[in-house]
Amino acid sequence: MLKRQQAESIKNVTVEDPFWTPLQNLVMDVVIPYQKAILEDAVPGAEKSHAIENFRIAAGESRGEFYGMVFQDSDVAKWLEAAAYSLVLRPDAELERQADELIALIGRAQQPDGYLDTYFIVKEPEHKWQNLEECHELYCAGHMIEAGVAYYEATGKTALLDIVRKNADLICARFGKGEGQVRGVPGHQEIELALLRLYDATGEARYLETARYFLEERGAEPDYFTEERARIGWRHFGPSSGDRNYAQIYAPVKQQTEAVGHSVRAGYMYTAMAHLAAETGDEELLAACRTLWRNIVQQKMYVTGGVGATVHGEAFSAGYELPNDLVYAETCASAAMIFFARRMLEAEPKAEYADILEKELYNGLLSGMQLDGRRFFYVNPLEVVPGVSGCLPEYRHVLPVRPQWYACACCPPNVARTLTSLGQYAWGENADTVYAHLFLGGRVRCQNGAQLACRSAYPWDGQVSYTVECEKEFALALRIPGWCKHWQLTVNGRAAEAEMKDGYAVLRQSWQRGDTVVLALDMPPRRIYADARVRADAGCVALARGPVVYCVEETDNGGNLAALRLPRTAQLRVCPGGDARLGGVPVLQAEALRLLPGDTLYRDEPSAQQETTLTAVPYYTWGNRGPGGMRVWVRE
Amino acid sequence: MLKRQQAESIKNVTVEDPFWTPLQNLVMDVVIPYQKAILEDAVPGAEKSHAIENFRIAAGESRGEFYGMVFQDSDVAKWLEAAAYSLVLRPDAELERQADELIALIGRAQQPDGYLDTYFIVKEPEHKWQNLEECHELYCAGHMIEAGVAYYEATGKTALLDIVRKNADLICARFGKGEGQVRGVPGHQEIELALLRLYDATGEARYLETARYFLEERGAEPDYFTEERARIGWRHFGPSSGDRNYAQIYAPVKQQTEAVGHSVRAGYMYTAMAHLAAETGDEELLAACRTLWRNIVQQKMYVTGGVGATVHGEAFSAGYELPNDLVYAETCASAAMIFFARRMLEAEPKAEYADILEKELYNGLLSGMQLDGRRFFYVNPLEVVPGVSGCLPEYRHVLPVRPQWYACACCPPNVARTLTSLGQYAWGENADTVYAHLFLGGRVRCQNGAQLACRSAYPWDGQVSYTVECEKEFALALRIPGWCKHWQLTVNGRAAEAEMKDGYAVLRQSWQRGDTVVLALDMPPRRIYADARVRADAGCVALARGPVVYCVEETDNGGNLAALRLPRTAQLRVCPGGDARLGGVPVLQAEALRLLPGDTLYRDEPSAQQETTLTAVPYYTWGNRGPGGMRVWVRE
Repeated sequence: MLKRQQAESIKNVTVEDPFWTPLQNLVMDVVIPYQKAILEDAVPGAEKSHAIENFRIAAGESRGEFYGMVFQDSDVAKWLEAAAYSLVLRPDAELERQADELIALIGRAQQPDGYLDTYFIVKEPEHKWQNLEECHELYCAGHMIEAGVAYYEATGKTALLDIVRKNADLICARFGKGEGQVRGVPGHQEIELALLRLYDATGEARYLETARYFLEERGAEPDYFTEERARIGWRHFGPSSGDRNYAQIYAPVKQQTEAVGHSVRAGYMYTAMAHLAAETGDEELLAACRTLWRNIVQQKMYVTGGVGATVHGEAFSAGYELPNDLVYAETCASAAMIFFARRMLEAEPKAEYADILEKELYNGLLSGMQLDGRRFFYVNPLEVVPGVSGCLPEYRHVLPVRPQWYACACCPPNVARTLTSLGQYAWGENADTVYAHLFLGGRVRCQNGAQLACRSAYPWDGQVSYTVECEKEFALALRIPGWCKHWQLTVNGRAAEAEMKDGYAVLRQSWQRGDTVVLALDMPPRRIYADARVRADAGCVALARGPVVYCVEETDNGGNLAALRLPRTAQLRVCPGGDARLGGVPVLQAEALRLLPGDTLYRDEPSAQQETTLTAVPYYTWGNRGPGGMRVWVRE
Repeated sequence: MLKRQQAESIKNVTVEDPFWTPLQNLVMDVVIPYQKAILEDAVPGAEKSHAIENFRIAAGESRGEFYGMVFQDSDVAKWLEAAAYSLVLRPDAELERQADELIALIGRAQQPDGYLDTYFIVKEPEHKWQNLEECHELYCAGHMIEAGVAYYEATGKTALLDIVRKNADLICARFGKGEGQVRGVPGHQEIELALLRLYDATGEARYLETARYFLEERGAEPDYFTEERARIGWRHFGPSSGDRNYAQIYAPVKQQTEAVGHSVRAGYMYTAMAHLAAETGDEELLAACRTLWRNIVQQKMYVTGGVGATVHGEAFSAGYELPNDLVYAETCASAAMIFFARRMLEAEPKAEYADILEKELYNGLLSGMQLDGRRFFYVNPLEVVPGVSGCLPEYRHVLPVRPQWYACACCPPNVARTLTSLGQYAWGENADTVYAHLFLGGRVRCQNGAQLACRSAYPWDGQVSYTVECEKEFALALRIPGWCKHWQLTVNGRAAEAEMKDGYAVLRQSWQRGDTVVLALDMPPRRIYADARVRADAGCVALARGPVVYCVEETDNGGNLAALRLPRTAQLRVCPGGDARLGGVPVLQAEALRLLPGDTLYRDEPSAQQETTLTAVPYYTWGNRGPGGMRVWVRE
């Protein structure tokens, strides 16, 4: 059971999905070219990036100063990674030429020993590797490694893979417990998951071993960061708070039981932990992953999948402390949960992981991107109040409309690389089973020989059909989503009995080419209630249909959304077609009440009410029709 | 109508009240001696004050450095003011000796020209009057003037009055629109109300004129603070945010329509505006006061009377934005509302002002002090959550138990001086009317010749009796509180018909010595609802009885108070006796429900419920039985 399910090759899944294919096209047509232009500083009015210019300077081909964040290189890496996945989805000679050119530049910027970080090459060469806590060298290296692996898998070209291997070899030689090695750990985790991907791509054990070292060394005593601070006597970002939760160094990772600190750092680390556990069968490590997963999902996750409830440290907050208005819920943290879920599924195929993967994809991640692909949220609130969100000091980070581009451009490329690689999250396999984690339209060609096509109008319709495209005996394991109360399964039109295992309906038989399996998931609009310990949601209800969480917006429902009341008994109606400005996605409606303002601030009687129609739209579409209030949780 | 009601002399009211007399005794027996010991640095383990030592150094009688805040002197002034009121309540030769000694020291510290601010005398003499925006010289002067007036009125001694007049004369000469004068305004308002009190005590017109100057100059263009910043090129507290709301300079005061910025600065300024309007009959100024009052009371006041909803700038927030957990609601701001209400009552005796005065006294102000008088809240939350309040970064200012003493010791002396001078707030008069604003037990001897005694067990009992102690025709105007729906009035045991005017039941007749008027206010426990625009209180109810707002505490109701549900129909019971640890005050009880935690964070069904008994205690008594959760607003 702990043996890792073999990763699908990047090319053995194709996507033809009425929901996701247009989004992937949007990323390819709009986001990736736009991001490239940003990296080249070719977008008038946008925040200066300078990221590619930094490489030119590092290569000695341009003069000037380094500009940007200490982790500016990672923007280039994430763009390359998304471009790689895009080339798998749709060949594009011009894009490939741009990527090759950029890769060649990166190669010229790399130093003879393999070192590759333009900030330190250009600006502070004397400070290389000195400030692991703050300076993101291992983080940037990790992102470039991910890009190198992706570009190799997408194109077969090894130029970037060779560059990142040389860099990884330098890192593997430098860090570890061996004689002459430095026992450092990164301030921002990322190198761990990247080295494991490099191990998957190359089979080189040292990459896995160094990933293991970074994970196992984390949280060790004496604390590396404390010693480093004392040793170097300078800071990059400013005084340390000494908070040992922030970068998850409060205990060795196997002993960590609570998700704390910066949620993206945490999510990347948990991803690597799960990957390593799946790879090595380390039962203790997997147990820690399960504990941390459960802590997040049972105490620290918004109903939209958002994680990291507080802007202070972009961090997880206390258990059940999920304020809808003060929220952080960074788009990148939802991406990290997607990565974590994928690796947990590889460690043990349980539908609970895929349920969260799905929740993040349709809600917390997708809400990060404007429908036209041109603007992005970093913070994904569940309640927006005009004059409060984005205005008052406590709420300044909670923007009511997506901004163009940030100086810290982490989220947009994370959305781009996740959406373009979606096929890698949809399926799983082992020797005799194919897992359908998501109901992603398209085809899969498994390493175990199974071949399938999937067709669906998910998430707007619950009917999903699979056509077998091989002759072979294998088990087809279809996830029954946690939100689904009633479903039916037919094989070639006849009702089929499936064995339920870990949330999957499993059909094991000898399949013929053309066999058709239809899964019909009942998908009525539904109400969601938060646990009694979540004080922010007390007395409230959220609406959803299938995996899609809904919200109410001022543009449909008028102002002061806190005054809306959805009676417990009100029928929820699905209205297909919805608002054309939202692409015609189905909206939900119900007869509701609205509390009316009165003459005094406090009164002896509850507010008078009037009848109204509540209209809810998919959460991921919010903020696409101009500024205004929004709420996910409506008072019942 | 605009003619100011003559202020009662400080000595013509005595207090014998079963509720307030013990609190006044507590202030005299515990708070004032403790504060004196703090000022002398004689309390082991307490935050260093150094306030009196600063005066010794300024007087050249001690060596050393100034220590403390730039407004450290005001702690001494507020202590002297409270001591003065205390001497009216209860002669105390030793206290008077201490005060006289301290006053003599202050006199020796004063400079020949009248200048009196130990920070600048000792530490930065070259910077006197240079940084009005930040450096609190006029604020400290104002507090010392208040002390001087109070001590003179209490003891007849003029030593401190002479000192502050000399200082005030210096200020009056320096600031104004005349030739050679500086057109400055203070960063923290206080001098304005103080000069008006000095005018009341001395009849010197220049004090009123300079108060008027400071008020009228405020918000003028070009902005004094902007020019000052540019001129001096140094800062005391750090960079200016340039926020013109913070110190209420966004418009000339007569054009200000919204209560914004630092709530104590605002409250002190509004107090002075109302005082000046009452004194001068300036109708335009009074209209501005009414507008600002209404803005606070109708949009920006907690049900406890707390004002200033945000810690950021200790400021008013947006309208209807009254978070119960993030709250600031500084004790000093409630004191400022008491001062403002008093001056509005003097400008126009309307019960709406006295209703708020009462609300502040029994709730927002009193909650600032521990029942034993030894610890104080600065921040008065309406929701405390263990592990959140005082713990998480957003909530670090919201302490779950009262701390001992702060480096910035503004609130404790504000409570002390307000409680010891309570008699000055209870009554009002004009030529032919006596107003009973509060139902304060004791006696009043009016300047119009009327004399009355009042006896009550308010706020626990609604029956209040007045005995006439003179023979005279006058109108007795008894406030009918806004919270009271049913009441009866008898004169000498017979039902009496009163004329209602501005919220007062007015009995006009020729009174005989011994005539008895009994006002019986129905005081059932009641529910309070917030307006539909207050999103923080949506779906919730607050409980009160008479003027006393109640809250639920974890110690009576178990943890997770957000899970409590008080059904709309549940009967509220008054349980006299209550908890002995709270002095036996009546508590409220009702049959209620408690939502039960479940297995998952989100579910298809609302949480299961179990029956429970809800117990509510007076809000001002919260936090006296150890740490734990607290809520004012309970879900209905």
